[in-house]
Amino acid sequence: MEFPAVPMETPADVHDPIPTDGSAGTRILRAAREHFFRFGYGSSTMDDLASELGMSKKTLYLHFPSKEAIIDTIVNHMGRMISSRLDAITADPKRSFVQKLCEVVETVGGALSRVSPMMLRDLQRYAPRIYDKIEQIRQRNIPIYFTRLIEDGIKQGMVRPEIDPRFAGEFWLHAIRGLIQPDILEKNQLTPRQTLEKAIDLFFGGLLTPVGRQDYAKHLAHCKKHASA
Amino acid sequence: MEFPAVPMETPADVHDPIPTDGSAGTRILRAAREHFFRFGYGSSTMDDLASELGMSKKTLYLHFPSKEAIIDTIVNHMGRMISSRLDAITADPKRSFVQKLCEVVETVGGALSRVSPMMLRDLQRYAPRIYDKIEQIRQRNIPIYFTRLIEDGIKQGMVRPEIDPRFAGEFWLHAIRGLIQPDILEKNQLTPRQTLEKAIDLFFGGLLTPVGRQDYAKHLAHCKKHASA
Repeated sequence: MEFPAVPMETPADVHDPIPTDGSAGTRILRAAREHFFRFGYGSSTMDDLASELGMSKKTLYLHFPSKEAIIDTIVNHMGRMISSRLDAITADPKRSFVQKLCEVVETVGGALSRVSPMMLRDLQRYAPRIYDKIEQIRQRNIPIYFTRLIEDGIKQGMVRPEIDPRFAGEFWLHAIRGLIQPDILEKNQLTPRQTLEKAIDLFFGGLLTPVGRQDYAKHLAHCKKHASA
Repeated sequence: MEFPAVPMETPADVHDPIPTDGSAGTRILRAAREHFFRFGYGSSTMDDLASELGMSKKTLYLHFPSKEAIIDTIVNHMGRMISSRLDAITADPKRSFVQKLCEVVETVGGALSRVSPMMLRDLQRYAPRIYDKIEQIRQRNIPIYFTRLIEDGIKQGMVRPEIDPRFAGEFWLHAIRGLIQPDILEKNQLTPRQTLEKAIDLFFGGLLTPVGRQDYAKHLAHCKKHASA
């Protein structure tokens, strides 16, 4: 809280969706991001930002018409970076399925590590249009990349061929959308990133022990017959 | 469509939540259920019901003040039956984990087999209070019974001990709530019951092949290190 004028910029951070070109626009975006995360989106004002940047409010407004325009641009940068990285990972024919899975989790987890439950709650309250935009990005991206990953896993013999990739993508979308919501995160006492890693382990690691899987496979035929009686 | 006056009653059906005591109240509930499922909840009227039952509208209204009161009672019966059966199944110390899983799927699947996507859509449109009630029943029941089942699976050595039963219950709740919604069912061209069975196989059967599981376990340590770099 003592050094609000020193944003935690790491110019070499390839995971950072905001370019480090030193232009006024990107300087504003970086400072705003740090400010929003430190003090909350709701309680930050354009006045605060201008004074932190040592910029007149007039100059600030020359680049962004509103606080919402700033967070909107940050979210756009983030969305574009995630999409382009996921495109590159999932399209690579040389990466193994598990490698791809790791890198997808790393990419999304890296982005999520910037997002606190408090920040999500703040957006939901004070910038619902932006919160909805994040929702829409998730709803569009998750089925695409997840389905692609599962299809590839089947091709490589790593995912059960009887799995329906589209259904699996939809299943995952609903689970993760439901879990990464401000009130559920607070209830579970987990950050978005912790939630992602826990959910991936649950879904990909599987629920059952080796003995459990044997028993499940053995009873499956009977169970299905029983269930549809 | 030719025999609307003959509801498909099977007195010996232990899965039927409406008792077959022959009283006017249960006669109305059974006839209404068949009628709603055949013609849709929205297009059924109390007039239709009275004439189908060979009852005056006055007598009908003596038992139920409205069409919504009828569907409300049907949903209550269904909710109570499902709860009491799931209580009995999950509390039984003699049933194995996989047996319990089968019977839970059979119970919920049996109830869902009465529910068409069209009927859900109709409730959402014309009886939103009842639709919300079904939502609330799901939100209350799923975490309870799922968590109990997973805890039991861990005790019996069938579920991986590192699984967090509460988190798994929440994951499942969001996935299944998202999938069993009128618009998603229509998009997926699946009934609620087909969705349940497909989702159970996905979640309990696991995503990976034996080779995939080996590779996943081998890369896991590296993947986690990588992911949190």
